[in-house]
This record gives sequence, structure tokens and C-alpha cells, in this order.
Amino acid sequence: MESLPPSLLELDAYLLSKIGKDARRRAAVRLAERELRLWHMAVLAALEDFGPLVQRELAARLGLDPSDVVKVLDELTARGQVERTRDPADRRRVQARLTPAGHAVLAELLAEARATDENLLAPLDPAERRQLHGLLTRVLDHVRAENPGAV
Amino acid sequence: MESLPPSLLELDAYLLSKIGKDARRRAAVRLAERELRLWHMAVLAALEDFGPLVQRELAARLGLDPSDVVKVLDELTARGQVERTRDPADRRRVQARLTPAGHAVLAELLAEARATDENLLAPLDPAERRQLHGLLTRVLDHVRAENPGAV
Repeated sequence: MESLPPSLLELDAYLLSKIGKDARRRAAVRLAERELRLWHMAVLAALEDFGPLVQRELAARLGLDPSDVVKVLDELTARGQVERTRDPADRRRVQARLTPAGHAVLAELLAEARATDENLLAPLDPAERRQLHGLLTRVLDHVRAENPGAV
Repeated sequence: MESLPPSLLELDAYLLSKIGKDARRRAAVRLAERELRLWHMAVLAALEDFGPLVQRELAARLGLDPSDVVKVLDELTARGQVERTRDPADRRRVQARLTPAGHAVLAELLAEARATDENLLAPLDPAERRQLHGLLTRVLDHVRAENPGAV
């Protein structure tokens, strides 16, 4: 394996960019085995964590284009993992929500993602992983506060 | 600012992917002010760190397509930052090398990149930054050992 330029390896942004790209690639490969993409998982997770949402709110939460969200919801609906229902508080609003099958598939996807995390961080011991997780969480909070739309 | 799904924020791969994307975006924005792209900086850094290289070796080191490397070298040559010379050890081989102007612009780009690192990691104190840098370096080494072509 050729070495990367040492002057770039000194840059944290370079390390994060390289590792982040590989983390994304691993997740995409894993999801592709189920003919899913990253956004399917994000939509399932958002509906699980936040409860039923109208499409516009779901798009805003994930920083996605509303038309992309409609497409992802259509695909998840066709698989029986999401259903559209009327908001009981305002029957003109159509909300998306997880079905039991959607809940189950998300649990599987999260378990697989945790296994991918284990592989990605294999050289770190449990204390170092907790350390890294804490540092990354603070950096992401900061990045999102600076550029809410971009992340 | 809306919160991201907590079940995703538990995943290190998700944090790394999100932060890495923003790190890359920041670098691209910064380089675009000079009408440069990420690969221009990588090529300048490789020629600085490894010395003169033939195009094929340079492409292999950076995991780039040789035809993309030729394009980047042409652009850097037109700016007077790179020059092509015959390899003194084998005059049939054409090597690319930095000019003094290329050396100077790389020093500026690296200084700007370090300033971007400061902004990206603003919430961390110096000891935490060193900690993060050490952890990320080990993770990248591991990722590259597992997938030499992909990173």
C-alpha cells in the first residue's frame, strides 16, 4: 500500500474526510444488499425517533429535498415499511409513519450498522471508542451550529 | 436547528460521515477561492512530500485515475506551479515536479487548511485535538489496510 502525503495526514479535516468517505461507502454497500440506500435508513430512523411526520417536516429534519423524501417514502411504502395516514389532529395533513415491518427492519439495519462500527474502529479499545464518540459528537454539534443547512 | 435522529447519532460511522462531508466541503470552498479543487492540493502535496514522480506513480499514490492526474498536472503546469522534466536516471521518463511557485502555494494552502482545522475542531482543547488526531490516524491506517484501493 502506498503512503498518502504526510503533509495531508497532519490535517484533521483530511483524516475525517477520508474516514468519513469510507464509513459512508461501507454503509452504502451494506444497505445495497437489501436494495436500500442511505436515505431509506435515515427516513426509517427519523420516523422511529420522532414519530409520525408530514413529508415537509421529515424533509426539513433530514435536510433533504421534499421531492426526494416523497420518492423514498413511496419506496418504503411499497415495501410495507411505511404507511401514510391522516393526522388525527388535522385530518387534511397526511403523515408518514413506520409499520411494524418498518420498525423491525430498522432494528436490523441499526444492528448491522453497529457491527460496521466495530469493524471500522477495530484498532481502538472500548475506552478509546467512547472517547472518540464523545469528541465526534461535540465536533458535529459545533459543525451543525455553524452550518445548519450543510450537515 | 432540527435535531438529527438520535438512533443515527449513536453510530460512529454516521458521525464520521457527516463530519467528513463537512470537512471536505470546507476544503473545497477554500480551494475554490483560488480556482483549485481538492486534487490540485493532493498533487502538490504528493510532489512536495515524495519528490518528482512520473504521472503513473503519482496516480497510484493518490488512488487517482491516470487521465485525471494528467489533467490536474496540465492545470498546475499552466499556472507555473508544476513542471515536467526528464528523469536524470532514465531520460525516456517524464517526471512532474514542483516549481518554487508550486512550493510556495502549497505552503499557503497548508496554512489555510490548518486554520480550517482550528475552526472545525473549535470545541476541543489542544489535548483533546491531539487525542482525536491520534485516534483518527489509527482508524485511517486500519481502513486503508483493509481497503487499499478505496481510501
